[in-house]
Amino acid sequence: MNTLEKAKAAKQASFKLASLDDKTKTAVILRVAGLMKERESFILAENQKDLDKAKTENISDVLYKRLVLTSEKIDGMITSLKEVAQLPDPVGHVSVRRELDDDLILEKVSVPIGVIGIIFESRPDALVQISSLCIKSGNAAILKGGREAQFSNRALYGIFVDAMAEINSLFNNCLQLVESREDIGELLSMDDYVDLMIPRGSNDLVKYIQSNTRIPVLGHADGICHVYIDKDADLEMAVNVSVDAKCQYPAVCNAMETLLVHRDVAGDVLPALADAYAPKGVELRGDSATCQIIRAVPATDADWKTEYNDLILSIRVVESLEEAIDHINTFGSHHTDAIVSKSAHACAIFLATVDSSSALVNCSTRFADGFRYGLGAEVGISTNKIHARGPVGLEGLLIYKYRLVGNGNIVSDYASGNRKFTHRDVL
Amino acid sequence: MNTLEKAKAAKQASFKLASLDDKTKTAVILRVAGLMKERESFILAENQKDLDKAKTENISDVLYKRLVLTSEKIDGMITSLKEVAQLPDPVGHVSVRRELDDDLILEKVSVPIGVIGIIFESRPDALVQISSLCIKSGNAAILKGGREAQFSNRALYGIFVDAMAEINSLFNNCLQLVESREDIGELLSMDDYVDLMIPRGSNDLVKYIQSNTRIPVLGHADGICHVYIDKDADLEMAVNVSVDAKCQYPAVCNAMETLLVHRDVAGDVLPALADAYAPKGVELRGDSATCQIIRAVPATDADWKTEYNDLILSIRVVESLEEAIDHINTFGSHHTDAIVSKSAHACAIFLATVDSSSALVNCSTRFADGFRYGLGAEVGISTNKIHARGPVGLEGLLIYKYRLVGNGNIVSDYASGNRKFTHRDVL
Repeated sequence: MNTLEKAKAAKQASFKLASLDDKTKTAVILRVAGLMKERESFILAENQKDLDKAKTENISDVLYKRLVLTSEKIDGMITSLKEVAQLPDPVGHVSVRRELDDDLILEKVSVPIGVIGIIFESRPDALVQISSLCIKSGNAAILKGGREAQFSNRALYGIFVDAMAEINSLFNNCLQLVESREDIGELLSMDDYVDLMIPRGSNDLVKYIQSNTRIPVLGHADGICHVYIDKDADLEMAVNVSVDAKCQYPAVCNAMETLLVHRDVAGDVLPALADAYAPKGVELRGDSATCQIIRAVPATDADWKTEYNDLILSIRVVESLEEAIDHINTFGSHHTDAIVSKSAHACAIFLATVDSSSALVNCSTRFADGFRYGLGAEVGISTNKIHARGPVGLEGLLIYKYRLVGNGNIVSDYASGNRKFTHRDVL
Repeated sequence: MNTLEKAKAAKQASFKLASLDDKTKTAVILRVAGLMKERESFILAENQKDLDKAKTENISDVLYKRLVLTSEKIDGMITSLKEVAQLPDPVGHVSVRRELDDDLILEKVSVPIGVIGIIFESRPDALVQISSLCIKSGNAAILKGGREAQFSNRALYGIFVDAMAEINSLFNNCLQLVESREDIGELLSMDDYVDLMIPRGSNDLVKYIQSNTRIPVLGHADGICHVYIDKDADLEMAVNVSVDAKCQYPAVCNAMETLLVHRDVAGDVLPALADAYAPKGVELRGDSATCQIIRAVPATDADWKTEYNDLILSIRVVESLEEAIDHINTFGSHHTDAIVSKSAHACAIFLATVDSSSALVNCSTRFADGFRYGLGAEVGISTNKIHARGPVGLEGLLIYKYRLVGNGNIVSDYASGNRKFTHRDVL
């Protein structure tokens, strides 16, 4: 099948997947876990082919590291699969049950979205994770993996196809693999067949996808996160949180990129921070007020809009809570932003008016993720303003449908006044 | 201000609106209702200017009728405003409260989306309705009305501006009016400032907007709704439902456009239907099987994809429930589709596998609307697969934000095993 045929087949399959019970979906995911173990040596051999090719093509160390599969990584995937299998069925949850009339019952019930388009780079384990989440939530998926992981992806995809074929023919066509670079453009144009795109990869990949499709995209391009140290902050706490937010794992989207410090405490806290950051090797870039207090590279306007993903931190001294919030709403990426303060009033204003998917008080920005939030599974982190925001669990792959069951009811009777709506919630 | 400045101002205003309490929002809406009454003669005089201009410009009867404001229509708007004012506050609803650790509490709380772009044609009352819904939900809005309603829109917009200025300066800039045709293109390109577009108008307007913006669009272009008469249908019920679905108000999106009839009952039900439709003046277009049973214009493939919005009905005879569902999922608009059947099994399959925002059993498609569903207010009807689907109430103007409140918590402590997550739901 070409890409269009695959997309059409996935769409057709999606209608049937919506009616599958949880037992069947769980059985597939557990069978995948079983086959992963059985085919471990095959997976590693196929992965080696990708690694050999990667070496001849001089790919970057970072990409190479992501590409490597090991026995331990396979065990990790198997554990994750078993966890996904055990999640409660997200489909069929009734959130509204309303009697419109004695014999006319409305239900709002969770259903799969339909067809999810996944574009991921390098990491073959992403294929396993997202495919299992799609199956659990009853969605069909079109998977576009990186060419650099072609052999690994095919081996893993084959396990899903075989497991699904074993368990139930309704799964036929529900996972599609596309491989060539040209397929991306085609996929992005298929808004008749693909209901949601989830890019898994670099900011550039996400931005490219967001700019080149009419299909809704779940994700975030930038993670420009802030910590604001208020005039009423506990200064030791402020230093601890700031060090954790920058240094605990600087390469990820929820690491802090810009520190805002209230002028009243800048003289005390900035030297303490500089001392704490120095042994970690953090490069500090400060506005002029900061540079008058500690040694820092003078920051430019570009720094406020930059996600370093590295041991670099921009620092700005602000006159007020309001100025801090303005800075965050203007220059940030609406991802995750924190205040350190003992003032309940300041914290309440911050929580209410910072337009971020996660607004935090007295803790590190690094907490903003699906595992730490206890979501059970993480589909991704979203800075969208509709559908799903922040760390997104399985609920991001669901929408709802209204079901209305009557007994021959017609609108004419209600328009004429012969019958009246009761509108009584029965749930 | 030019359109870009207006959009930026609305975005800035939106951050502050998010923190407004319900009492203040309700006060504004009630003040608007009061001013509507006070300024009734002014509104009618301004509306007359639009009507006079419309006459010289020969606009269509339909548009002219929509443009007319009367004392009764103003009273209707005032009643609607009071209803919106009394709705429960949709902002600040906590749907998840989870202890991540003893001193680290996560909340998922409903918040306004931000800035809503509204593009509406003719009807000046749309401005009043959608503006009040935006205020109630704490959203800023950019309103683009039709040029044909310019004077009416300005008069109504002025009431909102004056009411907001009276009650609280935080409302400054939160509603913006743009007027020229060129503003539409500019508005559609402002994905940095506008978070959601809601078109209120013709299918062509909706399609144009969907095809020309990266901003998410809430709405539906087509309403191609079906009724399927199953082999196990009560035939009298089938006729009643089919007549209501087509004739009760044919010009709207939830009216039936295509009737599907199971072959086993076609010989009985089609003649009865033809008799019922004849006095209503419904033109029937049938596939070849239909034309062998009743007199009908031969239908072409185009008929299955056409929203007539008129007293025209296409009819197709199908061999099975599955064929009916396939037809609906292939040719329909995923809006509202109904089955008439006494078989619980057939109804269950239909409800589960018809990919429609409203799936109905034994009742008319005309029930699919916000008032009849008891939503309190209707923002629009959506055939989107994410965020909001079907008749959309105030919840369509909301998203959520995570709030995490700690006591100096850092991720390093959890990564090292010094501390452990408890993940205990406390709501």
